Amino acid sequence: MALAGSPRAKKGILERLDSGEVVIGDGSFLITLEKRGYVKAGLWTSEAVVEHPNAVRQLHMEFLRAGSNVMQTFTFSASEDKMESQYFEHAEEAVWAVEVLKEARKPVAATMCIGPEGDMHGVTPGECAVKLVKAGASIVGVNCRFGPWTSLKTMRLMKEGLWAAGLKAHLMVQPLGFHMPDCGKGGFVDLPEYPFALEPRVATRWDIQKYAREAYNLGIRYIGGCCGFEPYHIRAIAEELAPERGFLPLSSDKHGSWGSGLNTHTKPWIRARARREYWENLLPASGRPFCPSLSKPDA
Amino acid sequence: MALAGSPRAKKGILERLDSGEVVIGDGSFLITLEKRGYVKAGLWTSEAVVEHPNAVRQLHMEFLRAGSNVMQTFTFSASEDKMESQYFEHAEEAVWAVEVLKEARKPVAATMCIGPEGDMHGVTPGECAVKLVKAGASIVGVNCRFGPWTSLKTMRLMKEGLWAAGLKAHLMVQPLGFHMPDCGKGGFVDLPEYPFALEPRVATRWDIQKYAREAYNLGIRYIGGCCGFEPYHIRAIAEELAPERGFLPLSSDKHGSWGSGLNTHTKPWIRARARREYWENLLPASGRPFCPSLSKPDA
Amino acid sequence: MALAGSPRAKKGILERLDSGEVVIGDGSFLITLEKRGYVKAGLWTSEAVVEHPNAVRQLHMEFLRAGSNVMQTFTFSASEDKMESQYFEHAEEAVWAVEVLKEARKPVAATMCIGPEGDMHGVTPGECAVKLVKAGASIVGVNCRFGPWTSLKTMRLMKEGLWAAGLKAHLMVQPLGFHMPDCGKGGFVDLPEYPFALEPRVATRWDIQKYAREAYNLGIRYIGGCCGFEPYHIRAIAEELAPERGFLPLSSDKHGSWGSGLNTHTKPWIRARARREYWENLLPASGRPFCPSLSKPDA
Amino acid sequence: MALAGSPRAKKGILERLDSGEVVIGDGSFLITLEKRGYVKAGLWTSEAVVEHPNAVRQLHMEFLRAGSNVMQTFTFSASEDKMESQYFEHAEEAVWAVEVLKEARKPVAATMCIGPEGDMHGVTPGECAVKLVKAGASIVGVNCRFGPWTSLKTMRLMKEGLWAAGLKAHLMVQPLGFHMPDCGKGGFVDLPEYPFALEPRVATRWDIQKYAREAYNLGIRYIGGCCGFEPYHIRAIAEELAPERGFLPLSSDKHGSWGSGLNTHTKPWIRARARREYWENLLPASGRPFCPSLSKPDA
Repeated sequence: MALAGSPRAKKGILERLDSGEVVIGDGSFLITLEKRGYVKAGLWTSEAVVEHPNAVRQLHMEFLRAGSNVMQTFTFSASEDKMESQYFEHAEEAVWAVEVLKEARKPVAATMCIGPEGDMHGVTPGECAVKLVKAGASIVGVNCRFGPWTSLKTMRLMKEGLWAAGLKAHLMVQPLGFHMPDCGKGGFVDLPEYPFALEPRVATRWDIQKYAREAYNLGIRYIGGCCGFEPYHIRAIAEELAPERGFLPLSSDKHGSWGSGLNTHTKPWIRARARREYWENLLPASGRPFCPSLSKPDA
Repeated sequence: MALAGSPRAKKGILERLDSGEVVIGDGSFLITLEKRGYVKAGLWTSEAVVEHPNAVRQLHMEFLRAGSNVMQTFTFSASEDKMESQYFEHAEEAVWAVEVLKEARKPVAATMCIGPEGDMHGVTPGECAVKLVKAGASIVGVNCRFGPWTSLKTMRLMKEGLWAAGLKAHLMVQPLGFHMPDCGKGGFVDLPEYPFALEPRVATRWDIQKYAREAYNLGIRYIGGCCGFEPYHIRAIAEELAPERGFLPLSSDKHGSWGSGLNTHTKPWIRARARREYWENLLPASGRPFCPSLSKPDA
Repeated sequence: MALAGSPRAKKGILERLDSGEVVIGDGSFLITLEKRGYVKAGLWTSEAVVEHPNAVRQLHMEFLRAGSNVMQTFTFSASEDKMESQYFEHAEEAVWAVEVLKEARKPVAATMCIGPEGDMHGVTPGECAVKLVKAGASIVGVNCRFGPWTSLKTMRLMKEGLWAAGLKAHLMVQPLGFHMPDCGKGGFVDLPEYPFALEPRVATRWDIQKYAREAYNLGIRYIGGCCGFEPYHIRAIAEELAPERGFLPLSSDKHGSWGSGLNTHTKPWIRARARREYWENLLPASGRPFCPSLSKPDA
Repeated sequence: MALAGSPRAKKGILERLDSGEVVIGDGSFLITLEKRGYVKAGLWTSEAVVEHPNAVRQLHMEFLRAGSNVMQTFTFSASEDKMESQYFEHAEEAVWAVEVLKEARKPVAATMCIGPEGDMHGVTPGECAVKLVKAGASIVGVNCRFGPWTSLKTMRLMKEGLWAAGLKAHLMVQPLGFHMPDCGKGGFVDLPEYPFALEPRVATRWDIQKYAREAYNLGIRYIGGCCGFEPYHIRAIAEELAPERGFLPLSSDKHGSWGSGLNTHTKPWIRARARREYWENLLPASGRPFCPSLSKPDA
């Protein structure tokens, strides 16, 4: 399968989605740059862009190689020429933003950081989606705060809400790259492990392939990640959807599909892991027998 | 506390260790660059150095900012002008290498990738250490294959072996950055999660602070990491040993000690996490209730 | 506190409940007698009553000593002179039974083996409760199939249903003595561990004290157990509610409240366990690091 | 296969073992009677024998039906006419007891409650076995305090010790019916769950079948259990060794081998559990996602 496909890069995001393409988002900036030593947890401000531009550029490069079609600016406030994306936990505030942006005559993608229970005022995901589309958003969805499966549940509710209201929009999802079945309405920040002990929850690439397939099957065509999504997670989306898209991302030159790169290992029991069924069915151990598997949120 | 301390960088490694300094090693190259998209798992070759020098340079930079005093070459075969480090699982082979290097009149650091049960021929860690020192190594220790606590157990045996033989050497440890209490004699490659589902085993920064303290208390003065050690893990070593060393690493400008950066968070229950006791005692959940906590090695 | 209180034993069950008394049910017969060697799993028939009457009598005796006020017949079909209790998974069938029994002019207690999702035809717990009371039941509730916390959730829905319909009835709950957060609509029989590997799920006495308190706070006054409830679990209900009832069960002569019996142990660290806070907060390990904490139902 | 085989009951225990028979011990009295309401934890005294003889007799009956050939007296001090068994944690004390009993001209079975690390004074299991046999014991082994697999490890060391000393004796093992991989030298009493939260550690019948097979393969011919061994665990020993012994225990009339009793269940997914491979390979969930899988001993 051919790698990359840069000619596509010239089309606008709505053109792509309208023509049925899958658009792959990017991943985690703040949490990833914190681990690399350029962002301070707690404040999570983005001065790295000016202080250490090479480090930020390098991470962008990694996401691009992994297959990201869209680079969201790392500042959480700057604008791009192709779209506007924001991050809200109140439906009303999101609606205001969409209206302002709409006047600027750009395609608007509005994602909210809500779970299946809806926003802080009890507005359901379905209602949020309807409000955003009525305000002018072309792309609606969720990002951050919840893990992949919870976010897909929210997306299903958004989709059903739009359908029931007779509205149409492109769907977009960018969940955490962490397993978070135990987080409450407030999302991952309320779990006791946030933000310095989330390691055992990091998704494997195989988890992300399953997520990407499920997102695609749900009709979502803008699929990416948020905190915890490392470049290899983005690549996993691009590899899972390579049959639909017709090409692999650049960094697949360093990745054998479903572990196939192990087939030349000298130890036979490691070679035996070079197959899809193996990784699809593996239940990975935590190596932490004194730790539980779930936590209770602090709020 | 002052940051960094670059003037020290001119001394040779033996001079430093002889004068009682703590030397901080670097961390994971292959596994980390695999996740960034530049190395292929299975082959684990290092062509990234020529193909993507910026990516490799960036990772070196991150380890330097995190406090590494020594950059081991990423090629696993090239030489540096200050020391020679190698990676052996047979005592005899390690001895040959030390003898050759010794003739080159350089200080030799010889680490073996063994656990408490010793090498492939049943040579105990104590005997391995004795052989290496007799062959001319100035620094002996272990790297890779086993988790921090298992590696410290091996180091204790090496130290006792040297002591019993009336020999002296500097001690060096560079374990995996993963929790691996269940790996057998062959180390982590034999566990079913290797290499694509090790995520739940990644150590937190707090685990690594405990490891660094225990290594120091055991008399080890060259303390670093191997596969799985990300830049923030190296920083955790440097922060834990800052009282002894008198300075913090550069990237501590982006890290509040023991979570102190959370003390300005808007949510009170997150502010309550801005203290040492909290993170020292937290037992982090895996978020994976269908997974076990330990695995059985394949061999 | 006085033990037992046999004079009370002469009142009818409705008299007791009407006067505000707490009635304590019995526990597990089939599963308990299977472990003792008198019942065959799968068929779960009750021929032990005739084949081994001493064994059955002994278990009844243990539940009586533990505080049970009511002995449900072990046959699942015989009648008692004080009440009728049955076990249904279809609301309609339960209603027929209540109507027939009502004609016999006895107080009817009707429990269904449903969870929060309701019966097999989607009748909600609230609707089930309303139907049963309208058909003539004086006591309604749930038994078997689900763990204590799931059953209390179902009871809350039944209570709300009755309240919304302006109806009144006594509430009764007899859940499994197992931790079953992962069972689906079909209950514990669908979990892969049923019926021969449920051991790790057995509730502690302290779990049951919490359950009893929560049931009481919810307004339930007939509190017992079903499969998995051993005599000491029933005693835990009776001990938790001793302040309200004014007496302890007979077998509390062999049980120090909240572990107080350990206060004479020779080892100080075991004496330190002779207190309520210790047992209330303990998170007991499974001793099975290769096993998960949750399972997926087979159906 | 024939049930029971009472004619054998007349032979003395040494005659049986000398002729190559497998002798099946009994199980848990104190912990089991505590749960039934007749023994107080902490003191663990045996006044139930006089206070509630029916309850004690019933438990004896259950063990007999399950296949026990030997009933150890519940008093921990009374004597039987066929053998003497005691329970020691100091080799020296055990030796004194054996010498005294030997003078009484009875066959002596001496078991110690030690683990692989030996007695309180560092006497290894091998040395303990040698001392006991030299003092006159005909049967040596371990009971209580440690789980099945730890106890088998200790037995292997005892066997090797005897072999190295050129001595011969019958081997006997009666471990806990709990999973205890995490208990230290002091055994299960030092674990935080002792004695009121051991539920999640209870072995399944299938665990016990594996234990019985492994004990048999190790050459042990007196195989039983201690605290936590319920009647159905003893039956599991008798069923596993039925091919060697030529008969099943009485209570196997209520037990289908390897779950075969489920083959008439109405639900097909439960019928699918009526086979050996299913239960042999099942990894049972704890149902407790907030709990760890291992604990740290208090001492």
